[in-house]
Amino acid sequence: MNPQLTEHIKQFASPTEEDLALLFEEVEYKAVGPKEFLLKEGQFCKFQYFVLKGCLRLYQINDRGNEQIFNFGIPNWWITDLDSLINHTPAKKYIQATKKCEVLKFSRVHLEKVMAVSPAICNYFRILLEKVKVADQRKMEYSLKFSGEELYHHFCSKNPAFVQEVPQYMIASYLGFTPEFISKIRGKK
Amino acid sequence: MNPQLTEHIKQFASPTEEDLALLFEEVEYKAVGPKEFLLKEGQFCKFQYFVLKGCLRLYQINDRGNEQIFNFGIPNWWITDLDSLINHTPAKKYIQATKKCEVLKFSRVHLEKVMAVSPAICNYFRILLEKVKVADQRKMEYSLKFSGEELYHHFCSKNPAFVQEVPQYMIASYLGFTPEFISKIRGKK
Repeated sequence: MNPQLTEHIKQFASPTEEDLALLFEEVEYKAVGPKEFLLKEGQFCKFQYFVLKGCLRLYQINDRGNEQIFNFGIPNWWITDLDSLINHTPAKKYIQATKKCEVLKFSRVHLEKVMAVSPAICNYFRILLEKVKVADQRKMEYSLKFSGEELYHHFCSKNPAFVQEVPQYMIASYLGFTPEFISKIRGKK
Repeated sequence: MNPQLTEHIKQFASPTEEDLALLFEEVEYKAVGPKEFLLKEGQFCKFQYFVLKGCLRLYQINDRGNEQIFNFGIPNWWITDLDSLINHTPAKKYIQATKKCEVLKFSRVHLEKVMAVSPAICNYFRILLEKVKVADQRKMEYSLKFSGEELYHHFCSKNPAFVQEVPQYMIASYLGFTPEFISKIRGKK
């Protein structure tokens, strides 16, 4: 069992010892080097990663050749390409370490087996997904409310953990800014 | 028990008769008139609604006095103000029927009790939330990829059920368009 993930689960749900034993029956600890990929476009995503240390990003290269960041995986958070994972389609996205990372790698097949019998583990993931939905709604609300620079500073003030882990220009990409705006922010740095 | 919701749950999970009996132990059938509110700004949201017929919208009035639509509830979908619901804070949003509706009203307290003991019901909601996350990611992807009008037409082609239920200008608001753009689309109608 991993104490960091166990602790995180217990923040949101009340797993029994059996729930945790079952969850950790199939897990792989993985050290990931800076810029190393856990997923590339065209591959089938079959894993969900819990981040112990470091930072990863989920991004896509759009038609104009620009990177568009959808999510970050910072410590005590999960990262995967949910679209490829749940729809069993080739990934359109990449998962890449932005720095040296340590992750726990769980196969979707295993997690589904665990969630099928353990309400606590299922509720843990359900609660995280609800939090993600609320965060996405707030992001949408703010993106319509604020100008680019205001949005960027508002996001940074509300998410200090991100600012520590994630380079500024990646946060700007995540917020949907143009490469020109990102360059401007990088210039000011 | 309600056959429409039972059928919907069985599309995604495998509930036992006991799971369903427990779920439907506390539920209220509710007819909702056009423009009637299920939630107003400032109230605490304590319910999740399964839409049997009609259409509802979750929206917020922004600082400029414009309505910003976050979600729709069309038949066989759920609608709530998740932010107020999970954070126990006064709602910043409204839930309003866009036409005559029929809904099933479940209290959050009851649903949490059910999900705590029923992996099937918990997995049902977890799977829906995963689908919502993927839909939100695609919306973000398309909103950066397409021009306003392209995005509107792409969304309509991919979501024919919405187009049947939801007035055009509300879809445009949901896609984050300005009131001016929405007027333009309404003018073309």
